[in-house]
Amino acid sequence: MASAVEIDAMRRALQLARRGPRGLNPQVGAVILSPTGEILAEGYHRGAGTPHAEVDALSQLAPGAARGATAVVTLEPCNHTGRTGPCAVALIDAGVSRVVFALDDPTAAASGGADRLRAAGVDVERGVEKDAAEELIHDWVALQRTGRPHVTVKWAQSLDGRAAADDGTSQWVTGPAARRDVHSRRAAADAIVAGTGTVRADDPALTARDDDGTLLAAQPQPVVIGKSETPPDAAVRRHPREPLFFATHDVKTVLTELAGRGIQRVFVEGGPTLASAFVREGLADELLVYVAPVLLGGSRLALGDVGVPTIDAARRLAVASVQTLGDDLLIVAHPTTRTQGDH
Amino acid sequence: MASAVEIDAMRRALQLARRGPRGLNPQVGAVILSPTGEILAEGYHRGAGTPHAEVDALSQLAPGAARGATAVVTLEPCNHTGRTGPCAVALIDAGVSRVVFALDDPTAAASGGADRLRAAGVDVERGVEKDAAEELIHDWVALQRTGRPHVTVKWAQSLDGRAAADDGTSQWVTGPAARRDVHSRRAAADAIVAGTGTVRADDPALTARDDDGTLLAAQPQPVVIGKSETPPDAAVRRHPREPLFFATHDVKTVLTELAGRGIQRVFVEGGPTLASAFVREGLADELLVYVAPVLLGGSRLALGDVGVPTIDAARRLAVASVQTLGDDLLIVAHPTTRTQGDH
Repeated sequence: MASAVEIDAMRRALQLARRGPRGLNPQVGAVILSPTGEILAEGYHRGAGTPHAEVDALSQLAPGAARGATAVVTLEPCNHTGRTGPCAVALIDAGVSRVVFALDDPTAAASGGADRLRAAGVDVERGVEKDAAEELIHDWVALQRTGRPHVTVKWAQSLDGRAAADDGTSQWVTGPAARRDVHSRRAAADAIVAGTGTVRADDPALTARDDDGTLLAAQPQPVVIGKSETPPDAAVRRHPREPLFFATHDVKTVLTELAGRGIQRVFVEGGPTLASAFVREGLADELLVYVAPVLLGGSRLALGDVGVPTIDAARRLAVASVQTLGDDLLIVAHPTTRTQGDH
Repeated sequence: MASAVEIDAMRRALQLARRGPRGLNPQVGAVILSPTGEILAEGYHRGAGTPHAEVDALSQLAPGAARGATAVVTLEPCNHTGRTGPCAVALIDAGVSRVVFALDDPTAAASGGADRLRAAGVDVERGVEKDAAEELIHDWVALQRTGRPHVTVKWAQSLDGRAAADDGTSQWVTGPAARRDVHSRRAAADAIVAGTGTVRADDPALTARDDDGTLLAAQPQPVVIGKSETPPDAAVRRHPREPLFFATHDVKTVLTELAGRGIQRVFVEGGPTLASAFVREGLADELLVYVAPVLLGGSRLALGDVGVPTIDAARRLAVASVQTLGDDLLIVAHPTTRTQGDH
């Protein structure tokens, strides 16, 4: 059982973890407690190539100062020699007598730290504030499993599934509340992805903005996918972050590339061709469909070929929520593996 | 002020009115009260060419028996000589001394009954249980104003606006709860309308049925619109009511025809061509969009040309409700006159 002091220390460690960047490595925080429960040192991970949180905390102590101490860490101390040595060994060497952690390390390479600590006679307690720790690094954990970022595909459509009127005009299919919602969700992603067709047609800035157009603090990486040229004066080229260009239609490869850059969460902004490609390839984890209360008819469809030749192959969704945003509806859905034919 | 006895009598008159058929004439009920509040006679209108409710009630009394009585009627007594004489005159001639009615007569031809009664010295009270009376004959009143039946246009679609997969398969885009809802709404209409394309492709029975396929008590008039031939063995030809066939694409003319047959409420069953025609012509009063949580892509659109060349001409809707039916959503909406450009 973790003590109240240890639980408090874990909450502090979670706060510290959040100071670190989202990237190739998980965000981790650590607090070293004296045998009487005083905080001796705090640490967190500042990104790949820098010390792990436990080592960051230990490094602030004089040699021997951690003897008999308790280390409180948001993730199981690693058992892996990478750019840094195994944290489990660092803790054993520092003479720590107890380790409390929140989440088991989900990777094959780094797991086993708890066992190694126990084998060295260290008292180990796992699972403290596990849910909060899981929430914090959820996207990173999922990426370890899938090898690619979490993908949200967003589109705005008329009730009858059109992205624009027949002459291409669409400003705006959806209203201000829906646009605000899009911007706040953009800001929560690590990358915003658009197709070259949309970049050429709509010239989007791919920034996350306030109502009055002010840039939000978080600006995801802009990414442009497709074989057409992005014009030299395209708005995306003035993005505060240098855009990434992928001259391919293979969205799966792009995701693998982005994962390799520490991008855990991708927001697919559009247009229809790119959205359809992600759905067709089974690479959409979440769909945000903003439905404007209008009928447009015509040929400008919000979604094209999603690889469904016949009804049994329909891409079934589980609707997570339907909410009203001004005059518009937002339907949040997740693809399910169950096909129409199963029931 | 109407007395409690008169209000009770009006509720009774409304019950009686419901016994009459929906048709060319409104449903009307009448109760004759003695000066001490006893019910002397009851009546209701049984359809065009039969006596009006007041006359039906009076006809049950011996000559002179209504002298000094109060007539409680759900609609203003008419002042019009049609196939029957003016009810206002019949009430005056019978010696009725007070008339209580719910709703003013909305037609130019028949209104003025209250004035005529007052001019003859009859005490007149209007507006008693007005809301209930309005609800009962709402469709009839609307038809007097518009010259056509109320039109509900229904379609089922995938979230991305398709009616079927690319090979035409669609059984079923939506689930059992949505189908049940459709059947109960069909039963509330006076006519169910389908296009010849749908009749040939899907061979619908155009009946309102129970879960187990049993016919519901109310069976609206089946109507088939379009220039293709309906096959001799089509299911609609086995409908309990003889179908009406209109070999035209002019849906407005069809509605005028149906109004002339006493049809006040039309349920447009499909398919996409017919639904689009009603929307395009501005003849849809209510839209029922059953949205299945699937993506289909492809070319089988639930709605085609709705006459929107550019976004400012978008057919804007007011969403009345969004409800969950099993896995599906039902969006009920009404066209608004406000266009996208107005705000």
